[in-house]
Amino acid sequence: MDKARVVVVGAGFAGLWVVRRLASEKDVEVMLLDRHNYHTFLPLLYQVAAAELEPEQIAYPLRGICRRHSNVRLAVTEVRGIDTARKLVRADGLDIPYDYLVVAAGSRTAYFGVPGAEEHSFSLKTLEEAVCLRNQIISCFEQAALESDPERRRAMLTFTVVGGGPTGVEYAGALAELVRAPLRKDFPELDMNEVRVVLLEAAPGVLGGFPERLRGYAKKRLGAMGVDVRLDASVAEVTAAGVLFASGEHLPTHTVVWTAGVRGEVVAEHMGLPLGRGGRVAVLSTLQVEGLPEVFVVGDMSLPEGQNPPMNAPNATQQGRLAAENILAMLQRRDPVPFRYRDKGAMATIGRQAAVVRMGNFAFSGFLAWLLWLFVHLAYLIGFRNRLIVLINWAWDYLFYERAVRLILPRRGCGTIDSRKREAAQGAGDADRPGATCS
Amino acid sequence: MDKARVVVVGAGFAGLWVVRRLASEKDVEVMLLDRHNYHTFLPLLYQVAAAELEPEQIAYPLRGICRRHSNVRLAVTEVRGIDTARKLVRADGLDIPYDYLVVAAGSRTAYFGVPGAEEHSFSLKTLEEAVCLRNQIISCFEQAALESDPERRRAMLTFTVVGGGPTGVEYAGALAELVRAPLRKDFPELDMNEVRVVLLEAAPGVLGGFPERLRGYAKKRLGAMGVDVRLDASVAEVTAAGVLFASGEHLPTHTVVWTAGVRGEVVAEHMGLPLGRGGRVAVLSTLQVEGLPEVFVVGDMSLPEGQNPPMNAPNATQQGRLAAENILAMLQRRDPVPFRYRDKGAMATIGRQAAVVRMGNFAFSGFLAWLLWLFVHLAYLIGFRNRLIVLINWAWDYLFYERAVRLILPRRGCGTIDSRKREAAQGAGDADRPGATCS
Repeated sequence: MDKARVVVVGAGFAGLWVVRRLASEKDVEVMLLDRHNYHTFLPLLYQVAAAELEPEQIAYPLRGICRRHSNVRLAVTEVRGIDTARKLVRADGLDIPYDYLVVAAGSRTAYFGVPGAEEHSFSLKTLEEAVCLRNQIISCFEQAALESDPERRRAMLTFTVVGGGPTGVEYAGALAELVRAPLRKDFPELDMNEVRVVLLEAAPGVLGGFPERLRGYAKKRLGAMGVDVRLDASVAEVTAAGVLFASGEHLPTHTVVWTAGVRGEVVAEHMGLPLGRGGRVAVLSTLQVEGLPEVFVVGDMSLPEGQNPPMNAPNATQQGRLAAENILAMLQRRDPVPFRYRDKGAMATIGRQAAVVRMGNFAFSGFLAWLLWLFVHLAYLIGFRNRLIVLINWAWDYLFYERAVRLILPRRGCGTIDSRKREAAQGAGDADRPGATCS
Repeated sequence: MDKARVVVVGAGFAGLWVVRRLASEKDVEVMLLDRHNYHTFLPLLYQVAAAELEPEQIAYPLRGICRRHSNVRLAVTEVRGIDTARKLVRADGLDIPYDYLVVAAGSRTAYFGVPGAEEHSFSLKTLEEAVCLRNQIISCFEQAALESDPERRRAMLTFTVVGGGPTGVEYAGALAELVRAPLRKDFPELDMNEVRVVLLEAAPGVLGGFPERLRGYAKKRLGAMGVDVRLDASVAEVTAAGVLFASGEHLPTHTVVWTAGVRGEVVAEHMGLPLGRGGRVAVLSTLQVEGLPEVFVVGDMSLPEGQNPPMNAPNATQQGRLAAENILAMLQRRDPVPFRYRDKGAMATIGRQAAVVRMGNFAFSGFLAWLLWLFVHLAYLIGFRNRLIVLINWAWDYLFYERAVRLILPRRGCGTIDSRKREAAQGAGDADRPGATCS
């Protein structure tokens, strides 16, 4: 019998773990589709945006993964939809036939319909966005150094992070450290008391879902690092000039980073798959789409019947592995088994020697938690060279209170004066965030 | 007496060496202006475009340099012109007064009026351009992997470098090595015999200015590496489809890299300075502008009376240092001294264990030349962390015939399908090279 053709859409954690599980199987042929030619290690994305790591260090070329397996092929293309009747994936310039399809396109930022949020705030979901944000932060300092009007200068130097989840907490902490030492040394002409990192959380506490003790620790720690943590703060509108609160109060700020929510990638809609809560695809407990036993949806996109697993890396890898197992089961005429999320805990780092870790009922914080965080992230980072260079950068920054990557490398839609002006002159469109600039 | 205000335009080698020389002087205040907030180590730029190094590794934050000196300040801004009567530099958003002005804005690519050359070829003068070119190379391979038409595929896999000077030779060699091992492993579905690296030189030999023996060695070596070296090949036109030769012959290629010439930066024209050959500024032998004793022009831009020094790093550093010396001389009521270019030789690397070095009348090639090349470039690279990580990358690539940075990170005007489509849809303007894409 000829090989079963498995097409995997998306090379995030979920997609890669499907590929890994099927790589060794003789009677399966895998075609991996992604719009990028690299896998992005999202857990460290915020460090790219905080000028701690270079984008290349948390990305790994997919070809480097696929070439190890003779039965895995890669196509770098944009998936537009699927034809479930003819079992085809419609991608840019080609139709790809499948026997089994695994959709793992991940998630995008959710703005909950807050006016101006999408147009005027930075998102932190892709490598490009992270570099844009890094450029924005450094540009604001460069421009503030030339700004004589104190009010405008203060708005330029106010960095607002919306959302007190792990991403928001980690990025606010990283920003505070970037400002505190490296940028203080870089900008002697600036009064660092004018610099503010503000973390906004609509709930009464940060790190929802973490044990009370850790949440208290995180808030205290962030405060000690100089982060202005505002709880019960719900954002009514984001404008080019700043943030308007439900309370009517206005915060002048030129940089708003939106980490408040995620929803399933839009491609699910293009595919006409049944959508559930948060733009996620409602699937059976076996991760199959009802009525389409050969179509699986895994990772952030997937909402298994009667469950609501977190949209994180452990869930993605677990679902990816199970989808692969279920495909193999069906090939062997066995029944697919239902998915059960195994909670291995959660962790978040706040700053040097400060992190929070929950493992089962076991919760701890501080230096040991921080070491464990470092170890786990290095261990999961793909590519030995990446690990080595990331380790060097971390050690360096830790020892010398320094940052390597303080460069403004303009790219499309990035918040730097020059690129802005050029793009404005050319009337470039949606990729611009008119408000998200210090000009 | 209050301090003399020296304004330096441009943070390349010439500008930085001015700053370094004046940094320790008590009665001088230096203001460094650049459109970027980093210094680019141009001698290794081609390695970024060949996916050998990450852009951050050959760039160094100017703040990191300036903060070491209490009398040096930085402004990241675009210089638009000068007002020599009122002794002002006109920059974006601010006018900067000077007592002494040193213009070191460098050079740009010269296309010699060849039709289509500027629109349809990649340039290799800035970090952004290098990353765009890297994206283009990898994108062409990704798209060729999906292309069924053999003719289109061959054009996608034909990479043409125009200009047999050091940059062209080094880049052609680096491309050949990128193709030969790393990309061969990455793209098992492609027939590598369809891949061509073509080096075009209008003169009868490559590396003009180098001793005959080294020029022969370089050509032989490039040929052995699979580079199709074409001498006496003068380009009549560049189109989206390829290169048209004066002979009437046509070479179908989707990627043309133009390294055939450089001319002084355009800002010299905006400044209304007297232009000489190659858009360089005609200055006195003291590097002062005639009639403007307080204005110096140094580096690639500068054409000292009766001399024609090479537009390279040694010349830039020598001129920068001399301009600084002459300013100090004038402050001490001494006469400025004339510039004399001291030729320390030249070097170019072709591939692993293959380079050419000329020192005075002493010329050698091969392994030792290659080691010397590595050593000199590491030594001049600014920033110890950069040196360390570059060394790791070089060692890694050398040992494992591998490349770390095989990522397509789209940026404005970069040759990737997606970004192209988006920008086309938005009718984005001049930053695009309509032809320089594989779509």
